[in-house]
Amino acid sequence: MKIMKITLIGAGNVGSHLAKLFRELNYEIVEVFSRTLEKAEKVAEMANASAVTDLSKVNAFCDIYIVAVHDDAIKTVSDQLEIGNGIIAHTSGAASIELLNKHKNYGSWYPLQTFTPNRQPNWQEIPICLQANDGRALELLLDLARTVNKNATYLTDRQRSHLHIAAVFVNNFINHLLGVSQSITTEQKLSNDLLMPLLKETISKAQTAHPFLQQTGPAKRGDMKTIEKHLSLLSESHHELYLTISINIQKTHERE
Amino acid sequence: MKIMKITLIGAGNVGSHLAKLFRELNYEIVEVFSRTLEKAEKVAEMANASAVTDLSKVNAFCDIYIVAVHDDAIKTVSDQLEIGNGIIAHTSGAASIELLNKHKNYGSWYPLQTFTPNRQPNWQEIPICLQANDGRALELLLDLARTVNKNATYLTDRQRSHLHIAAVFVNNFINHLLGVSQSITTEQKLSNDLLMPLLKETISKAQTAHPFLQQTGPAKRGDMKTIEKHLSLLSESHHELYLTISINIQKTHERE
Repeated sequence: MKIMKITLIGAGNVGSHLAKLFRELNYEIVEVFSRTLEKAEKVAEMANASAVTDLSKVNAFCDIYIVAVHDDAIKTVSDQLEIGNGIIAHTSGAASIELLNKHKNYGSWYPLQTFTPNRQPNWQEIPICLQANDGRALELLLDLARTVNKNATYLTDRQRSHLHIAAVFVNNFINHLLGVSQSITTEQKLSNDLLMPLLKETISKAQTAHPFLQQTGPAKRGDMKTIEKHLSLLSESHHELYLTISINIQKTHERE
Repeated sequence: MKIMKITLIGAGNVGSHLAKLFRELNYEIVEVFSRTLEKAEKVAEMANASAVTDLSKVNAFCDIYIVAVHDDAIKTVSDQLEIGNGIIAHTSGAASIELLNKHKNYGSWYPLQTFTPNRQPNWQEIPICLQANDGRALELLLDLARTVNKNATYLTDRQRSHLHIAAVFVNNFINHLLGVSQSITTEQKLSNDLLMPLLKETISKAQTAHPFLQQTGPAKRGDMKTIEKHLSLLSESHHELYLTISINIQKTHERE
């Protein structure tokens, strides 16, 4: 079976990026649902689709329903949908596919990336993580992923949950640390560009061997004098952050 | 005055990279000091210099003495040196230049990068941070930096100390988080490559605006359900790390 018709449930950040993508891939997007008419209309327009704000009125004859709503809303939304023989999949990293088990064929279609409004995602590279309750659903989700790129990966619920935690470290937590370091340079009237070659090298090195094997710095070598000096200079709002990460580094390397 | 002769005090990781660099820049490296003869000889050979293991015997007629030893050893080493009219500078991010104040002209020549044995540094990009106790020393240190690249920056002791803390966040702490995320994927028998597009986008985005303005994720949106789910899955050895960073993210955005 070839995918012909897609309906998008959710018109937020991920939903609108998917609308643009599926349109570019020449899929027919039948409807875009959002509780907010304005949002539904905006994304529906991008996708050349109809806007819908009432779940009970969603078209029941699509091949695939992509649910890109907040995790907390997935079950409620799914339970209100009547989708005939269609396949339903959510785009969440953390939610179980069982939230969709009212339907016959369901799964996950999780693009592992951080999406930003008005910023073009690198779809050629993004791994699309798949899971499904049966072979037919998986096949269709895989077909959809393969039209995007060659990086489709099949994950279990458990693997996807863990991968999502790793993604929180890689994206949310690293972004926060970059924010802290930028606050420090700004406060000292220094250009943050000074740190860019170091960041580049840090990332590049981490891809040559396990980062734990390449750890350096005062925490790794137990240099309490430098740690204390740093704490005496660092804004108090970041003391616990600095100390906890340092202690975790020390413990990681004690265990070696 | 043009720099003709350099002596390197310290034959560790930074010392040996500097030996290679200065040699490539056609400086005459007169001596390489290390307490360990083997180390001194190894780096001296790279630099076509003499090895020396006794500080009291270090040649007193060099233009510049670069001290690349552990912070704790800087003062002891400096106090044992007799260097005539030469200029002495250390390569430390955290140590004050006053550790060198036994001498007439002293300062800091701090290449802001993480150095790895057998890995070529990107010298064209590395900011070299300078500081000196007087104009003559600064001029000479600047001359040396300018033969490396155009990124020489003058910093005060205070700015350098803060920049060094920012560097700990950017290098040591980010490296640790990358190690944790890799441990998670390895444990789940997943390729760590799955996270590379996300990492690339995280770093790329952080350069378009202040990272705090672009923070996303469960901590930022106060999504306790996801945080609790993550903690239930995450190895206990990383609970405090996850929680402390999450709380710091929340507090940062409360303050906004």
